[in-house]
Amino acid sequence: MLTQLADQYNDELIKIRRYLHMHPELSFQEEKTPAYIADYLHSLGIEVETGVGGRGVVGRIIKDPALPTLAIRADFDALPIQDEKEVPYRSTVPGVMHACGHDAHTAVLLITAKILSQHQDEIPGNLVFIHQHAEEVDPGGAIQMIADDCLRGVDAIIGQHVSSSLPVGQIGYKVGTVTGIPDDFWITLQGQGGHAAHPDTTIDPVAAAIRLCNDLQYIVSRKTKPTAPAVLSITMLNAGEQNNVIPDTAFIGGTIRTFDAETQNIMYQELKNCLEGLVTTTGITYDLKYLKGYPPVVNTEKEMMLIVEAAKKIESVTELIELEPSLGGEDFSYYLQRVPGAFFYTGTRNENFKADFPHHHPKFDIDEKGMLSAVKVFLQSVEDYFSGVK
Amino acid sequence: MLTQLADQYNDELIKIRRYLHMHPELSFQEEKTPAYIADYLHSLGIEVETGVGGRGVVGRIIKDPALPTLAIRADFDALPIQDEKEVPYRSTVPGVMHACGHDAHTAVLLITAKILSQHQDEIPGNLVFIHQHAEEVDPGGAIQMIADDCLRGVDAIIGQHVSSSLPVGQIGYKVGTVTGIPDDFWITLQGQGGHAAHPDTTIDPVAAAIRLCNDLQYIVSRKTKPTAPAVLSITMLNAGEQNNVIPDTAFIGGTIRTFDAETQNIMYQELKNCLEGLVTTTGITYDLKYLKGYPPVVNTEKEMMLIVEAAKKIESVTELIELEPSLGGEDFSYYLQRVPGAFFYTGTRNENFKADFPHHHPKFDIDEKGMLSAVKVFLQSVEDYFSGVK
Amino acid sequence: MLTQLADQYNDELIKIRRYLHMHPELSFQEEKTPAYIADYLHSLGIEVETGVGGRGVVGRIIKDPALPTLAIRADFDALPIQDEKEVPYRSTVPGVMHACGHDAHTAVLLITAKILSQHQDEIPGNLVFIHQHAEEVDPGGAIQMIADDCLRGVDAIIGQHVSSSLPVGQIGYKVGTVTGIPDDFWITLQGQGGHAAHPDTTIDPVAAAIRLCNDLQYIVSRKTKPTAPAVLSITMLNAGEQNNVIPDTAFIGGTIRTFDAETQNIMYQELKNCLEGLVTTTGITYDLKYLKGYPPVVNTEKEMMLIVEAAKKIESVTELIELEPSLGGEDFSYYLQRVPGAFFYTGTRNENFKADFPHHHPKFDIDEKGMLSAVKVFLQSVEDYFSGVK
Amino acid sequence: MLTQLADQYNDELIKIRRYLHMHPELSFQEEKTPAYIADYLHSLGIEVETGVGGRGVVGRIIKDPALPTLAIRADFDALPIQDEKEVPYRSTVPGVMHACGHDAHTAVLLITAKILSQHQDEIPGNLVFIHQHAEEVDPGGAIQMIADDCLRGVDAIIGQHVSSSLPVGQIGYKVGTVTGIPDDFWITLQGQGGHAAHPDTTIDPVAAAIRLCNDLQYIVSRKTKPTAPAVLSITMLNAGEQNNVIPDTAFIGGTIRTFDAETQNIMYQELKNCLEGLVTTTGITYDLKYLKGYPPVVNTEKEMMLIVEAAKKIESVTELIELEPSLGGEDFSYYLQRVPGAFFYTGTRNENFKADFPHHHPKFDIDEKGMLSAVKVFLQSVEDYFSGVK
Repeated sequence: MLTQLADQYNDELIKIRRYLHMHPELSFQEEKTPAYIADYLHSLGIEVETGVGGRGVVGRIIKDPALPTLAIRADFDALPIQDEKEVPYRSTVPGVMHACGHDAHTAVLLITAKILSQHQDEIPGNLVFIHQHAEEVDPGGAIQMIADDCLRGVDAIIGQHVSSSLPVGQIGYKVGTVTGIPDDFWITLQGQGGHAAHPDTTIDPVAAAIRLCNDLQYIVSRKTKPTAPAVLSITMLNAGEQNNVIPDTAFIGGTIRTFDAETQNIMYQELKNCLEGLVTTTGITYDLKYLKGYPPVVNTEKEMMLIVEAAKKIESVTELIELEPSLGGEDFSYYLQRVPGAFFYTGTRNENFKADFPHHHPKFDIDEKGMLSAVKVFLQSVEDYFSGVK
Repeated sequence: MLTQLADQYNDELIKIRRYLHMHPELSFQEEKTPAYIADYLHSLGIEVETGVGGRGVVGRIIKDPALPTLAIRADFDALPIQDEKEVPYRSTVPGVMHACGHDAHTAVLLITAKILSQHQDEIPGNLVFIHQHAEEVDPGGAIQMIADDCLRGVDAIIGQHVSSSLPVGQIGYKVGTVTGIPDDFWITLQGQGGHAAHPDTTIDPVAAAIRLCNDLQYIVSRKTKPTAPAVLSITMLNAGEQNNVIPDTAFIGGTIRTFDAETQNIMYQELKNCLEGLVTTTGITYDLKYLKGYPPVVNTEKEMMLIVEAAKKIESVTELIELEPSLGGEDFSYYLQRVPGAFFYTGTRNENFKADFPHHHPKFDIDEKGMLSAVKVFLQSVEDYFSGVK
Repeated sequence: MLTQLADQYNDELIKIRRYLHMHPELSFQEEKTPAYIADYLHSLGIEVETGVGGRGVVGRIIKDPALPTLAIRADFDALPIQDEKEVPYRSTVPGVMHACGHDAHTAVLLITAKILSQHQDEIPGNLVFIHQHAEEVDPGGAIQMIADDCLRGVDAIIGQHVSSSLPVGQIGYKVGTVTGIPDDFWITLQGQGGHAAHPDTTIDPVAAAIRLCNDLQYIVSRKTKPTAPAVLSITMLNAGEQNNVIPDTAFIGGTIRTFDAETQNIMYQELKNCLEGLVTTTGITYDLKYLKGYPPVVNTEKEMMLIVEAAKKIESVTELIELEPSLGGEDFSYYLQRVPGAFFYTGTRNENFKADFPHHHPKFDIDEKGMLSAVKVFLQSVEDYFSGVK
Repeated sequence: MLTQLADQYNDELIKIRRYLHMHPELSFQEEKTPAYIADYLHSLGIEVETGVGGRGVVGRIIKDPALPTLAIRADFDALPIQDEKEVPYRSTVPGVMHACGHDAHTAVLLITAKILSQHQDEIPGNLVFIHQHAEEVDPGGAIQMIADDCLRGVDAIIGQHVSSSLPVGQIGYKVGTVTGIPDDFWITLQGQGGHAAHPDTTIDPVAAAIRLCNDLQYIVSRKTKPTAPAVLSITMLNAGEQNNVIPDTAFIGGTIRTFDAETQNIMYQELKNCLEGLVTTTGITYDLKYLKGYPPVVNTEKEMMLIVEAAKKIESVTELIELEPSLGGEDFSYYLQRVPGAFFYTGTRNENFKADFPHHHPKFDIDEKGMLSAVKVFLQSVEDYFSGVK
């Protein structure tokens, strides 16, 4: 019973997470974080590859290539958000923050690796620990690490994400589609600026941007099938610097989220229609950069149920929740396109610890007790996986 | 006939203007420009005060305080705009540009001062050259320079602005109100950010900003009296940094232009109403900073007609145009609240020289021939002023 | 095998449907239609009740109250839409049309009743034929007919709707929730009218209506959970009569569709928020009438599968399609709140017969071949129901 | 002193006005009103022409065609507005109302004609009383009456309008342009309707109408010159009849008001641009009917000052107000395109009598005392006109 060993590492688990929380690094700029991970795995005597797919770190315990191999994955990049929490472990990097919990994912996987490495004799198979960079941007690190062969020999893969929607104690799961398709867009409107007192002598890109952004609301409200979930979020606006100058350009950026290619295509086409209509109406020109997102995470039934059954054995897991799919994106999907596997959600919400802000919020935090449950679910799933494949 | 002397200084006039054009400085950050002006005036043997009201420069030729005194004013600050012209004299300072012609105003006044200083014996009175900083922002430099007593002893004041609306050769004038009231506003909308895939868990400040900016259009289109000119230009938008993060806040800035206090008050009140309605509808909170602008420039009839009559005598002035008032703001108004005076407009538009972009445009330029006309109108006005007051 | 008997009634089936199609009557104004139905049932020797719940007609074949009783329901009201089809059987009533297929529902049930009445000896139980008025409005006829005891003695109920989404030959089904909650709203905005040249002297209700309707788009695009389907359709606008008069009031009406009470409540609350914000911003006042819709149709598993198994036996049913739920409303739900039962969809789409316009479209039509399949599914379901309960 | 005679007719003046107020008739539907006027003029022994230009009535006192001839004009049509006043003389015709004061114009001219006819010996010239139909619509009655030669022999024309902006006792005047160009538009958007629960299967004309109407606000707020007054009022919306049916079409109507052809053209072109952009974005088609309005009223200086000087002699005229131009339209302009003349405004506002609602408001009313002032200004102007031309 590996899970009984986990409790003694709780302090270390929290220490690692807080250290990482204080030293976040943006996607594709990670340097200290992968070095820290590699050092830690090295200290466990695990064989380590660094720079996998760029910045990824992979630890391997290979007893016999002929034996079955299970991979566990955690991501480690942070977000360009200013930490606004009042806690001793708040981010020390201005404007950068672990606002999605990847610090916790990493700590959980390191402690899991520690226990498994110490008890590798009891595991009748091979283990691969995939520490992935750059999950927050698209295309993210997964596709690079796979191209760099991080999945070689892997028969199945599991992973987890902390969740601010689930109270601590709960584990969320879902067979099949669990995340959406996260497309991104960047639009520059090119008008003709001038004096703010004479808008009639300009082609005002700010006014055009407002009209466009307003028009875009009609796509989800009128043009997509109501039963096909879709989100269009405008998350970036940028125009002008001076009260009395109408600028030449305005910039608009955001994301489009869907579950299926048909709705994704409607969203893209209607976005184009709005832009073309704007050109006709205002005389503005535009540049659209559109990046289709990674595919949905589709959990295979066998591996998902392996985790569910494992979780049922964990005392600190008070409830198993069957989730609805979410339009959040997750590039764990790329691993699942190659090997079977499953991705679960670990409850870390707790109003009492101010751990009730949504992901990507400047005050996002977790109830760290959830991490220990995640470690235990991993350990139990590993045990059950290899007893199952025996 | 002082005006006949001006032609020989045309090359220097252009040289000074181009030098200033290449070395623009932002409002309230002017250092080299006032030093350059002070040096030039010094070299003419004129008594110079620097640091007037902060960064202004005043030159004085005082023959006898008992004699009448005429002031001429030019402003010398630049704008935060990236120069996009392809000319040898384009701005050397990234993101800063003389896009409103204050370089030309300064060159015109320096050459005017040069000629007048060399011929001061012919002038039966005193002259004050007011080189003002920070006209582009509000409150600008005029009010500071007046507080620092730049108008002491002054009986009347004249000034001019180059105009991209008037073809070179024309001089524009208007008795009475000629500019508007330039209020500025800065709004921060405070929502609650989160994951871009879950807008329903946030109070989206970007969506709120779009609604607000759209609502603001209805003020001019529906709430002000059609015969009372009004402009509300949104010139700045700023929100978010990442495609998948709905930010906490959105920033909106711009200007409101009117000619009368009643319309100005309607604009302000309706802006407030839009914000309060937005709070009710969306749950957002807001911070509004609102700065009432400087008063309209109101030219006194006697001084305006002095300039008109002077201009008629200048050969290069092909046409005198009675202007409509413009909603542009100009802090020359503060001088006119203390002493009589007038402000005229010098045509510098010329399609053949690409000098046909509006003020505040990244490609704004002037037909430099207009500058010589301005010098001559100043010289003739000075002559006529003192012959008139004799 | 009752189903084999149906083919010979195909001509009559079509004749009845076309007769009804040419003589549509609006909800709660049905007079000739229930009379026609009652006459037809009488002619079959069936015991008939008229005026049930106002305008409904119920036919009963009661062999023994102690035996099981199955009800079949069809609705018979039409819509206020001008028929734009070019067919011999187009509506003869200006502005009224069977644009949803209730004519077909009625014809199908009458022919079903005819065959069953002729073969009632073979049925070891009782049958109730519920012809319902006023399904298109809310609250519709179902709740009235139930109050008037149309379900007395009924053990289960089945019904069907023709579908322009399903090609002829297909039958659609779904266990559990299959329709949405159709709330309706009516809003009057009270401003203060005046001369169209002087909007500033008015409180313009048309401008307020535009802002409101635009604001309402943000509810579905931003405020509801993307995975909880929701629709807000504005279907009615009414304001003003004269080009040069800004009217005092504007009227807006429409519908809100959801599947769950939580989303329904969000929609209502946000609608209120938009209205309250509008009051704050514009000074308008409003009157909101909001009618919560009938509940979703929730098919019970046993009865739904009874129909599915029956349909599999019908040769003209080429495919059984498991449906997604739709946000259309259907007051069949009220029957299902009292007794178990199921509601299925009969494909009537056929591009070749111009039967490919959506429901409620002025050119809506059906491939009449679908009706015969519906009759057969009803007949087979009746046979199977009673063989099952024996 | 003709003006002294007026007081004794005050009761009749009010009686006539109230009679007309109770019996309003819409533009181009006037029957009883012109008959009433013709009868009245007949009873004065004045030569009367009826059916002039369709429905106009002209009275003539021609002493000698060789003498100078002055015309006075009043309009007599009403508006499609429901009278909401609580007064004994409220309109007896449902949905029709004298909400602009044409009843008062007619009463004033009839009493003026009565006094002048009784004292025609004192007038050294000819008089023409033009009672015009259909001023409220465009093209109105003036152009028809002129075509029918109502101005034959006329040397100058005067007219007046009651004003809810001017307190009773005031007379408003302006040399030059005093009214605007009233263009009208009617737009039908053709989409493709369907079921309100499935907007994605439709081309929703209501959503398109909302977007268009919102877009139209940007024309005045951004595209016209701020110093060139412009109004675009949407005064009519019409779409749909049923909560659960998205209709096929939406109708939008309104007016565009400007003072100059350049701004008029910008408004029209931008309206077209908005429509074309809407087609591109939504797939809707449109039909636009656009009617350019009658020209501005441009008062000639001599005739305007004649009235001003006359008004100064009237005791009940407490103040003469120089007006700003208004964007209201007035087809008096057509007369002024043929002969010199002037149009003045008679104050009839009085809060104490609830006579403070704007024109075209359902509660519009006048302080009837203003009418007597108008009669006197007409009488004095006639006297002065003929004494001036002698």
